Amino acid sequence: MKSKSFDPNDALDASLQVFWQGGFGGTPMPDLLKGMELGRASFYNAFKSKRLVFLAALDLYISKVDAGLAELARDVTTRREAVEAILGAIFQLARSGNVWRGCFLGNTALELGQEDKEISVRLKRGIELLQKRIAAALSKPASDGSHLSPAQRDQYALFLVAGIQGLLVLAKGGLPQKAIDDIASTLIEAIP
Amino acid sequence: MKSKSFDPNDALDASLQVFWQGGFGGTPMPDLLKGMELGRASFYNAFKSKRLVFLAALDLYISKVDAGLAELARDVTTRREAVEAILGAIFQLARSGNVWRGCFLGNTALELGQEDKEISVRLKRGIELLQKRIAAALSKPASDGSHLSPAQRDQYALFLVAGIQGLLVLAKGGLPQKAIDDIASTLIEAIP
Repeated sequence: MKSKSFDPNDALDASLQVFWQGGFGGTPMPDLLKGMELGRASFYNAFKSKRLVFLAALDLYISKVDAGLAELARDVTTRREAVEAILGAIFQLARSGNVWRGCFLGNTALELGQEDKEISVRLKRGIELLQKRIAAALSKPASDGSHLSPAQRDQYALFLVAGIQGLLVLAKGGLPQKAIDDIASTLIEAIP
Repeated sequence: MKSKSFDPNDALDASLQVFWQGGFGGTPMPDLLKGMELGRASFYNAFKSKRLVFLAALDLYISKVDAGLAELARDVTTRREAVEAILGAIFQLARSGNVWRGCFLGNTALELGQEDKEISVRLKRGIELLQKRIAAALSKPASDGSHLSPAQRDQYALFLVAGIQGLLVLAKGGLPQKAIDDIASTLIEAIP
């Protein structure tokens, strides 16, 4: 383990990987330190507490997902393509090798949910950003050139956020890939 | 605390309430014993371990939800009514007072997911039962008397299972009631 000099950004990034897989309660301190390649003293000097590094990891996740989705929307021309690109990107993000690790926001919502103000303010912001990025993708025209109204865009964006979170719950619950693909198709078909 | 005689069914039911709220990792033994109103010795005599009582609570939850949904489908005549009744029942179940506690299956999927065989076999069975009960509800005729094909029924049943799980993730993440209601409407509208 390093003990003197380390890159705090790398360490935070590593903490995100650990918490994403194991959750807050499911990550014992020794596992966190091992994942971050830090000794106890360096950890507490730099990050103060497990809780503070968890909050910072949540912020990091939100900004990464936000940037990734903003990127995606630039490369597509139709609404259908945009929705497919977003679903594809999120499914890729939600897997680590062969294991579904889900969306760190959804995992955290179910683990720590509403009871904790500092967590819930981040979850709210994360969900709003997801909705906003998906709404931007839905502002692309259909292949016939028609557009959704702003109200429809917001409605279907939130619907897709829920659908994606639900899909990831079922994927982590062991639903076979074929069924996951079927649900994804039904979600895509539900968008006018 | 009782120490000699207690009803194991009541104690198991109490354990379900505790685990549903706090998860497996988020429930320390003292909280579990307090919720079950059992002393340490009685607990270990009757239930052997925290893990075994968690597995039994998961089985109990699945059989309760299954029985509840079977009941519901009996009292409705149209497909739309059936879907609305199921969403209403699950939303009621997923709240404890003012707090969203979610679906115990979804919570467990995100906390313990695929890594654990004894858990994942139960999650799989629970999700299949949900899908089956919802498919039975979708076998009701539309108000014009038309029926979905069996393949459509299964497709939309799984879609609704995912939609409901996703809604509960967002509800636990603090989404306002208005937005939750909007997503529920969009889900209902997506069923032909």
